Amino acid sequence: MTQVKAFAAKEQAAPLNDFDIERRAVGPDDVRIDIAFCGVCHSDLHMVNNDWGISAYPIVPGHEIIGHVTGVGANVESFKEGDRVGVGCFVDSCRTCEACKVDLEQYCLNGFKMTYGSETDDPGGLTFGGYSKKIVVDQNYVIRVPDNLDMASSAPLACAGITTYSPLKHWNVRPDQTVGIVGLGGLGHMGVKFAHAMGARTIMVTTSSEKGEDAKALGADDVLLSTDAEQMAEWAGKFDFLLNTIPVSHDINPYINLLKFDSTMCIVGAIGEFKSLQSPQMVFGRRAIAGSLIGGIKETQEMFDFCGEHNITSDVEVISMQSINESYKRMQKSDVKYRFVIDLKTL
Amino acid sequence: MTQVKAFAAKEQAAPLNDFDIERRAVGPDDVRIDIAFCGVCHSDLHMVNNDWGISAYPIVPGHEIIGHVTGVGANVESFKEGDRVGVGCFVDSCRTCEACKVDLEQYCLNGFKMTYGSETDDPGGLTFGGYSKKIVVDQNYVIRVPDNLDMASSAPLACAGITTYSPLKHWNVRPDQTVGIVGLGGLGHMGVKFAHAMGARTIMVTTSSEKGEDAKALGADDVLLSTDAEQMAEWAGKFDFLLNTIPVSHDINPYINLLKFDSTMCIVGAIGEFKSLQSPQMVFGRRAIAGSLIGGIKETQEMFDFCGEHNITSDVEVISMQSINESYKRMQKSDVKYRFVIDLKTL
Repeated sequence: MTQVKAFAAKEQAAPLNDFDIERRAVGPDDVRIDIAFCGVCHSDLHMVNNDWGISAYPIVPGHEIIGHVTGVGANVESFKEGDRVGVGCFVDSCRTCEACKVDLEQYCLNGFKMTYGSETDDPGGLTFGGYSKKIVVDQNYVIRVPDNLDMASSAPLACAGITTYSPLKHWNVRPDQTVGIVGLGGLGHMGVKFAHAMGARTIMVTTSSEKGEDAKALGADDVLLSTDAEQMAEWAGKFDFLLNTIPVSHDINPYINLLKFDSTMCIVGAIGEFKSLQSPQMVFGRRAIAGSLIGGIKETQEMFDFCGEHNITSDVEVISMQSINESYKRMQKSDVKYRFVIDLKTL
Repeated sequence: MTQVKAFAAKEQAAPLNDFDIERRAVGPDDVRIDIAFCGVCHSDLHMVNNDWGISAYPIVPGHEIIGHVTGVGANVESFKEGDRVGVGCFVDSCRTCEACKVDLEQYCLNGFKMTYGSETDDPGGLTFGGYSKKIVVDQNYVIRVPDNLDMASSAPLACAGITTYSPLKHWNVRPDQTVGIVGLGGLGHMGVKFAHAMGARTIMVTTSSEKGEDAKALGADDVLLSTDAEQMAEWAGKFDFLLNTIPVSHDINPYINLLKFDSTMCIVGAIGEFKSLQSPQMVFGRRAIAGSLIGGIKETQEMFDFCGEHNITSDVEVISMQSINESYKRMQKSDVKYRFVIDLKTL
């Protein structure tokens, strides 16, 4: 167990080269996957550090998994050996609740089984994630990866991708709309790509003019500097939808004011408390604030297919398993454009 | 002007008996109304006291107006002398903006003309409201009142009624749903009546078991005591929609937790700041918080017609013009079930 805990962003030298996790045997509905790449999500670090108080150790993080099928169970017809597949944030759910029945397993009323850190009857007693050489997953929670997509840069689609795609689809982003992506990081850069590909006039809302220029290269049509009061006034009431990817607590009120009447700002970045919510701008305009969590399996497949059609992947920096702790540190400083992806050959 | 200011909740003796406001002549599109009753909205007091910093004096409050038509302009075909009509919170809007074009004049991008306190070319330079014997209003902002409805208790429909009806309709409240009305006052008691009439399982969410019993008499199917942690836990995730009518700032987070996934709490009572918004329960369930303001003219007419069909009016206490300042004081103590209505014969 010590080598697993070593994935925490602590300065311990970890005996990674002998790291291995026993996986369950391939059952009739299972798919065995050799993991090629695994994205590094900010939540991996939160889980490693138990920032949310829900971590169970040992932890093998990683829920942006891309690999090849190396074995399937007797009941599996949709996947065969050699297929390129992905696994996202969860590997099972109750399948019977109101949410599961409408393909929203991410809101499973009985709690989905996280790709790592959830209790299981499998060896080890906990699910183990993608910072690993292999994984065995029920076929219903495995995604097909279009052939034209690069594998390394497809990995973050399984979390950062679906986290931004799902709300843009749910709130029906369309070509005749103006959509703001607030914050440019792992999530935000995918939001820009998706909103642009959906045909919306895509505006990067950021505190940094440098990030604004970066966003234009990713597909943003224009930039709104949120620190500039004049620009904020000029853009007030102009947005059909805002996707707020800022990863920390912040003052959300100035952003609400950017919305048209009857429009929504969706929070996908900050999991915590906002210290103020002004109701007048919500009441005088029927504006809404909502949250959104990743996406269901059906929609995740739809998103991967959309990425195949539009040739969308994440902008990534491929790292070795050995540099994970350094990468966590850089991630905390937002020093990555825009996602680290571990090459599991290095494990 | 002094007699007008005397409507403020100050202990001045007001020469009410000689009070009169000059109204504009009836133009070709106008309807002249003899006011029979006018509801007393909490916002009247806020405006009289300039609590929101937008008041212009002199003020004649009142935007829950019911009366009879006493004259119409040459272009008016929908109304004739003797008709029972109502006027709500606004008497004009730009009619050309995106909001007006879709019958949402309450969100008019150029600002609607409030029934009282808005600038106008009419005599006095400001619009004057329903604490008065007569009013002249453009035909497009006048509502027909069904014959079967009592006039005094219909007055609050024009504000308290539409404020609660509109969000229940907008968020599509249906018979197979569980709907919570949070807070029981002028707004809340209308919310209970409407949700019940729409066929929803209607739950009164209140801090007071006494109010809970009152709500049952109004049509609530059950009561959730929000001060009871066990009850709150039991009802967590059970509501398809919450209409929050609490008139002051409060902790909204415990209520959000009551929502099913993909559901909304709409704020209609508190116009101000909430000091905390917890995002996790929004993210883990795609829950939303929204605001809503009164309703458009088309929907206000629909609401009056709905009230006619279902024989719904407000529970009111009819008062004389002379007791307005005392009534304001009682209103501030929530000492009214559930709306004061001024009988304008007493003016």
